[in-house]
Amino acid sequence: MMKTLTVNLGERSYPIYIGNQLLSKKELVTPHVHGSQVMIVSNDIVAPLYLQQAKALFADFQCQTVILPDGEQHKTLNDLNLIYDALLSNHFDRYCTLVALGGGVVGDMTGFAAASYQSGVNFIQIPTTLLAQVDSSVGGKTGVNHPLGKNMIGAFHQPSCVLADIETLNTLEDKQLSAGLAEVIKYGLIRLPDFLGWLEQNMDKLLARDPEALSYAIEISCQCKADVVAADEHEAGVRALLNLGHTFGHAIESGAGYGNWLHGEAVGIGMLMAADLSMRENWLTEQDVQRVENIIKAAKLPVGRSLCPQAVPLAQGRSCKSFSAPMPGP
Amino acid sequence: MMKTLTVNLGERSYPIYIGNQLLSKKELVTPHVHGSQVMIVSNDIVAPLYLQQAKALFADFQCQTVILPDGEQHKTLNDLNLIYDALLSNHFDRYCTLVALGGGVVGDMTGFAAASYQSGVNFIQIPTTLLAQVDSSVGGKTGVNHPLGKNMIGAFHQPSCVLADIETLNTLEDKQLSAGLAEVIKYGLIRLPDFLGWLEQNMDKLLARDPEALSYAIEISCQCKADVVAADEHEAGVRALLNLGHTFGHAIESGAGYGNWLHGEAVGIGMLMAADLSMRENWLTEQDVQRVENIIKAAKLPVGRSLCPQAVPLAQGRSCKSFSAPMPGP
Repeated sequence: MMKTLTVNLGERSYPIYIGNQLLSKKELVTPHVHGSQVMIVSNDIVAPLYLQQAKALFADFQCQTVILPDGEQHKTLNDLNLIYDALLSNHFDRYCTLVALGGGVVGDMTGFAAASYQSGVNFIQIPTTLLAQVDSSVGGKTGVNHPLGKNMIGAFHQPSCVLADIETLNTLEDKQLSAGLAEVIKYGLIRLPDFLGWLEQNMDKLLARDPEALSYAIEISCQCKADVVAADEHEAGVRALLNLGHTFGHAIESGAGYGNWLHGEAVGIGMLMAADLSMRENWLTEQDVQRVENIIKAAKLPVGRSLCPQAVPLAQGRSCKSFSAPMPGP
Repeated sequence: MMKTLTVNLGERSYPIYIGNQLLSKKELVTPHVHGSQVMIVSNDIVAPLYLQQAKALFADFQCQTVILPDGEQHKTLNDLNLIYDALLSNHFDRYCTLVALGGGVVGDMTGFAAASYQSGVNFIQIPTTLLAQVDSSVGGKTGVNHPLGKNMIGAFHQPSCVLADIETLNTLEDKQLSAGLAEVIKYGLIRLPDFLGWLEQNMDKLLARDPEALSYAIEISCQCKADVVAADEHEAGVRALLNLGHTFGHAIESGAGYGNWLHGEAVGIGMLMAADLSMRENWLTEQDVQRVENIIKAAKLPVGRSLCPQAVPLAQGRSCKSFSAPMPGP
C-alpha cells in the first residue's frame, strides 16, 4: 500500500511517497539521487533505529553518514557546521545528494546545508516523525535557529523526493506523536472543516497508531500543504495560512529555551492563543475557541491555559488577558 | 559621467551603475530599497572612509550599520553571525534591505546574509575595490569560506543594483589595485582578445589610476561578466570560464591560510599555472604562456614561478613540474 502525491512547482516539482515499509524500496529513491556521492544526515536517536535500513537504500552509491545531536537546541549554525565538515572532509562535490533521516530538526538543517553547500546541491527527505511527515519535509523551508529568533536563518530549497514511511512512527514517543498531531489539526482549522470533523471522531485511533487512520491523516495533510505551497512557494500570500499558531508558538519556544517545548506542542497552544485573540476581536465565538481547545486536549497536547486575574488595558482601549505558558507535562 | 549596464536575468535583472561620485546620488539607490529598514555592512578599513557618505545615501530610511573585521580570514560562518546578530537585535523584518559597502569579502558575506536571513531579503552592492567592482559584486555568487575550502558555503542571490563609484579606487592600496587587475586580465584571456591587447598597451595608465582608463576597463569587465552570467546564471556550463585561475588560486589561498594571499593575487598566479598546464597538454604555446606571464607581471602581481628541479612522473606517463607559491612581496 503506497500513495504518491506531487508537489507542483514547475521544474522543482517532486513526489511524496506515503506508505508502509518504504525504507526497503530502493527503486523509489534511486531515480532521485544525483551524482555518485550520498551523505545521510541523522541524529543520535533515529540513527540506531533506521540508519542501517537507510544505508541499504543507497548501497549503490558512495554513501557516508553524519550524526547530529538530537533536539531543537542543536538547530544552530554551529551544529550545521558538522554537516559541512563531513561533506568537505569526504571530498563531496556539487553533484552530491544529501539525505535527511529524522524529524523536523534534521530535515531543516539538512535542507539548509543542501541549499548552501557549494551554492546548492540535491537533497532527499526521509521524515521519521509525524510532524516531519505532515509538515517540515514538505514545502522547501529550510534553516536553523538564532538565539534571537526561530528559523531566522534559512533558505527555500525543495527536495527531489520525500519518503514518508508510516512504520517509523511506531518507535515515536507519545509526546512526539501528539506534537505531530498539532500540525495535522492545523490543516483542519485553516482549510478543511470536514477533515477537522474527521479528526474529532478519530483522534483515539490516531493516538493508538492505527495505520489506516495515520495514513489517511498524513495524506490529507500533505495534500493540503502541497496545494498551499504550489499556490505560493515563497510565502508572498496564502502560504502565511500555514503559520497558524506559529507566531505565538515560536515566541514560546524561543522564550522557554529551544528544546524545552517540542515545536508541535508550542504550535498547539499557539493555535489556541490565536483562536482566543480572534474571539477578542469578535472574529470567532467562544464556542469556536472551546472546539479548538477540545481537539488540542484530545490530541494530548498541553494547553496550560490560565487567564491572568486582571485585564491589562491597551492603548486602543481593548482589554488583553494573558496566557501563561507553563512547561509541558512529563 | 555615468554608464549603466544591465545584467539580464529575467525578473532578477538589475542595473550596474559605473561612474564618479555616485556615492552622493540618492536617486540611484532609493528605487532599489525594499521596505523601510536598511542595514549597511562594511569593514573596519572601508567604514572610516565611506560610511558617512553611504549613510547619507540612505538617510530617508531607518538605517543601521554593522562593521566586520577586514580580511579573507574573517569570511567565516562565525563572522557572518555578526550580521545576523545586528539584524535580529534591531528587529529587522523580511522586507529589509542589506547594503554591502566594501570589497569582495564584504560583498560575498552580505550577499549570503541577505540570501539566508528570513529565507532571503533584498540587497544592494556598493563595491569599493577594483576586484569587487569588476567581479564579485556582479553575478550573485555569495558565501563564506570553510577551513577545508574557499567559498564552499554559499548561495546564488542577485543584488537589486550595483553602484560602482570609481572615486573609491583612489584610496585603494597598490596591491589591492593589482589584485583587481588580475580579474580584469581574466576577461581578456577568456573571451576578449582585443581587450587583452588594450590592457597590454594601457597597463601603466591603469596602475596610475587614470579615471578614463579605469572606467573603460571596469565597463568592459562588467559587461563581459554580465553576458556570461546572463547565459548561465547557475554555472551549468559557460560560466565555468569565469573560474580561470581559480582552481589553482583557491588551493593557494586555502593552503597558505586565508588572508595571506589576496584573492586577486592568487588568481593571477593561478591563471599562469593554468596556462602552463595548458602548454603541457599542447593546448597553448610557450609564447602564449609568456604573454600571460608578462601581463600578470605588468600588473605588478606576484608570479613566483619556479620549476622544481626534477620532473615527477604521473600515472598517465606525463611529466609534471610544480610551481612554488611563495608569499607575495610587500
